[in-house]
Amino acid sequence: MQKVLSYIEKNQDRFLEELKDFLRIPSISNNAENKKDVLRCAHYVADQLRQIGMQQTQLFPTSGHPIVYGEWLGAPGQPAILCYGHYDVQPVDPLDLWISGPFDPTIRNGEIFARGSVDDKGQVLMNFKGVEAHLKSEGKLPVNVKFLIEGEEEVGSANLDHFIVNHKELLKADVVLISDTPMFDRGVPSICYGLRGLVYCQIDLKGTNSDLHSGSFGGTVINPNFALAQIIMSLKDREGRIQIPGFYDDVLPMSPEEKQELARLPFNEEKYQKDLGAPAPFGEKGYGTLERIWVRPTLELNGLCGGFIGEGAKTVIPAKAMAKISMRLVPNQDPDKIADLFERYVKQIASPSVELTVTRMHGGKAWVAPIDHPAIQAASRAFEKAFGKRPVFVREGGSIPVVATFAELLGLPSVLMGIGLPDENAHAPNEKLDLFNFQTGIAGSAHFFNEMKQE
Amino acid sequence: MQKVLSYIEKNQDRFLEELKDFLRIPSISNNAENKKDVLRCAHYVADQLRQIGMQQTQLFPTSGHPIVYGEWLGAPGQPAILCYGHYDVQPVDPLDLWISGPFDPTIRNGEIFARGSVDDKGQVLMNFKGVEAHLKSEGKLPVNVKFLIEGEEEVGSANLDHFIVNHKELLKADVVLISDTPMFDRGVPSICYGLRGLVYCQIDLKGTNSDLHSGSFGGTVINPNFALAQIIMSLKDREGRIQIPGFYDDVLPMSPEEKQELARLPFNEEKYQKDLGAPAPFGEKGYGTLERIWVRPTLELNGLCGGFIGEGAKTVIPAKAMAKISMRLVPNQDPDKIADLFERYVKQIASPSVELTVTRMHGGKAWVAPIDHPAIQAASRAFEKAFGKRPVFVREGGSIPVVATFAELLGLPSVLMGIGLPDENAHAPNEKLDLFNFQTGIAGSAHFFNEMKQE
Repeated sequence: MQKVLSYIEKNQDRFLEELKDFLRIPSISNNAENKKDVLRCAHYVADQLRQIGMQQTQLFPTSGHPIVYGEWLGAPGQPAILCYGHYDVQPVDPLDLWISGPFDPTIRNGEIFARGSVDDKGQVLMNFKGVEAHLKSEGKLPVNVKFLIEGEEEVGSANLDHFIVNHKELLKADVVLISDTPMFDRGVPSICYGLRGLVYCQIDLKGTNSDLHSGSFGGTVINPNFALAQIIMSLKDREGRIQIPGFYDDVLPMSPEEKQELARLPFNEEKYQKDLGAPAPFGEKGYGTLERIWVRPTLELNGLCGGFIGEGAKTVIPAKAMAKISMRLVPNQDPDKIADLFERYVKQIASPSVELTVTRMHGGKAWVAPIDHPAIQAASRAFEKAFGKRPVFVREGGSIPVVATFAELLGLPSVLMGIGLPDENAHAPNEKLDLFNFQTGIAGSAHFFNEMKQE
Repeated sequence: MQKVLSYIEKNQDRFLEELKDFLRIPSISNNAENKKDVLRCAHYVADQLRQIGMQQTQLFPTSGHPIVYGEWLGAPGQPAILCYGHYDVQPVDPLDLWISGPFDPTIRNGEIFARGSVDDKGQVLMNFKGVEAHLKSEGKLPVNVKFLIEGEEEVGSANLDHFIVNHKELLKADVVLISDTPMFDRGVPSICYGLRGLVYCQIDLKGTNSDLHSGSFGGTVINPNFALAQIIMSLKDREGRIQIPGFYDDVLPMSPEEKQELARLPFNEEKYQKDLGAPAPFGEKGYGTLERIWVRPTLELNGLCGGFIGEGAKTVIPAKAMAKISMRLVPNQDPDKIADLFERYVKQIASPSVELTVTRMHGGKAWVAPIDHPAIQAASRAFEKAFGKRPVFVREGGSIPVVATFAELLGLPSVLMGIGLPDENAHAPNEKLDLFNFQTGIAGSAHFFNEMKQE
């Protein structure tokens, strides 16, 4: 590994420049107007794969954004690692809160600021460079490697399942490597062994045929904004407990062992709250913050809109109101069943004075892995060698539905080696990535391929 | 009046073309980017005043948009009528719901569609043309006339009080004429003798320092969207009764005579609801629709916003949420007192987990006039002559705060002769004005000046 690690050391500046190029492409998969940028980004990924020494590199078109694939299969008899990541990014609004432009990567205090830096371009490039280090210094990899980098992760990976089902032979592997999860804290390398699932819905309410003057009509017609607030308030109680009948039925309690492990983690509730700038603590009663994130489901109101939202005052009763609502699920909760319960309940509680539409956007199952799996243990050794510290085993509140997909469709276990930090503003303004973690993570990635080698 | 009326008859086509020119100017007083258009519109009004024969026509600059003034004082010994109106218009969003462009006046089925057509450019021009008909056919008016046309009515007339206080001599008159109220129904000319007042506030909530990933943080921090829904749901009960302590304390019951008059009006609750396209009736218990509009205060949620409101799905916990809330007041309720009650209550019910800011935008007192006032009776005769029907006396749910202002600052009574229709979409997409009412209203306006003449 000496040659590999010294190659990484020598090429850090170039790696950083390549990361900047990657981040400059506004590959927002959710915006129709960015379609060309997303395509350009797919080509950038394919070019990278070719440069680092992958073979069979190609773009697979989908009905949405293309999937990029490349492989190196020069280690017969050795396991094959399928590295999954995504090159698309979240929208950037509210734009006015960004200190530097979301697609103008800017380094401040050892962190690079740009949309996609931590989620997930920085971590995708980390694994590219881990592979490159082997191939360019040793001429080979210790194991076989396949890359599957998609462009629709931020919009629900609608075309990925279909692609996987139709390319089972191409994607055949022993384990999936995903780097899209955060470290527990700065200086605490982490392996993630559990993820929450997701159900995402939109509620649309219609009152009258058109917006009305609130003076002339106020008090005589339903205001869909009120009807929406009514629905919202019936979804959770004031402590955050979800009121949908049957919602918690399938939730499993934490095992005593997990509880013990969790209690040992260096976690400071007060600092957590202070870092986020929250005026007061909040969350489901009877659970600590880590439990609330890892093993408790939640319901969040991601967006809310109705009537006049510009500057100043407009005296209008809106005809329509809208809410985007997502639920994070824990293992053993079924997304379809939860979506059914949600829809039935919302229809039941909505005022009859409004027309209600519920649209299901996307969803995915939660996931939990056995910590003693050999690939997870290899990941643990790799991070220990790179960071000089034994990693902790953590769960994550977010969803990577593809982890469940790989398990179900290909029967593959996943290893989640992420190097993001919890305060790196994924999905928010001023997204960033710690450059020490990026650079150390490249070594971690290179070590992982080495640790996966069978003697 | 024969020459006057035949002048109106002969010039209808030109009047319509002039109305179109007036409507083409996007004089949205609420948008900083339309500032030049609003100024252009003020000049258009001044040019009109000069053309119809007004003297001393001038623009008075304010810290916002200019006030336009013109006068004709050639009838010594006769009363002076101060005609008030506004040349500014409401914002146009949601733009996609307009069938033709908001500033591309288009005639369909005898109605002209454009922002400002009924509120208030059409009605302002109606009085201009009523005056023009006298001056151009007879060379004189039967009474003295002053025009005061402002450009900030849709944003709370912030600079009008100051202007009135500083120009008491200039504005000296016997009565104010305002045409900015709707007719009770198509074919039912109406004189408005009561208006609701207004208090308009904005609530801003802040949870965390920045938007957060709803997977990574969901369940552990307050979501300001929920905190906002909580506040909203505490403002009214499910039947629409306002829950702010003391809110109804000063509300006066309707007199038996008023109730009798109201019961005689041709009003069809079912048709009202159907016309608006509301799925079910709604409103405060124990009151009919007309009472809910005329003599009961209301609280409406004019705008609501928080988090991601674009197309698709974004898994974010927003840092901020906002609501625009207005209350319509009835006679004897004091706007400052109501705003105090509102603010105190909201601060009391808001979750301590969010930072709350309440901003007072603008307000005005409700107003009610004696029906037997000579000027109101003159208006009644004028409309009867023009429309061939005795008008009904109605109240209006909207606010024209300037009516209270004229009473308080100049001691002047107001006459409200409006020719809008309730379904003409003031403040909403596809605002329109019935051209029969516009043209007949010009004759009504000309008659009014004649009826005000003292023998």
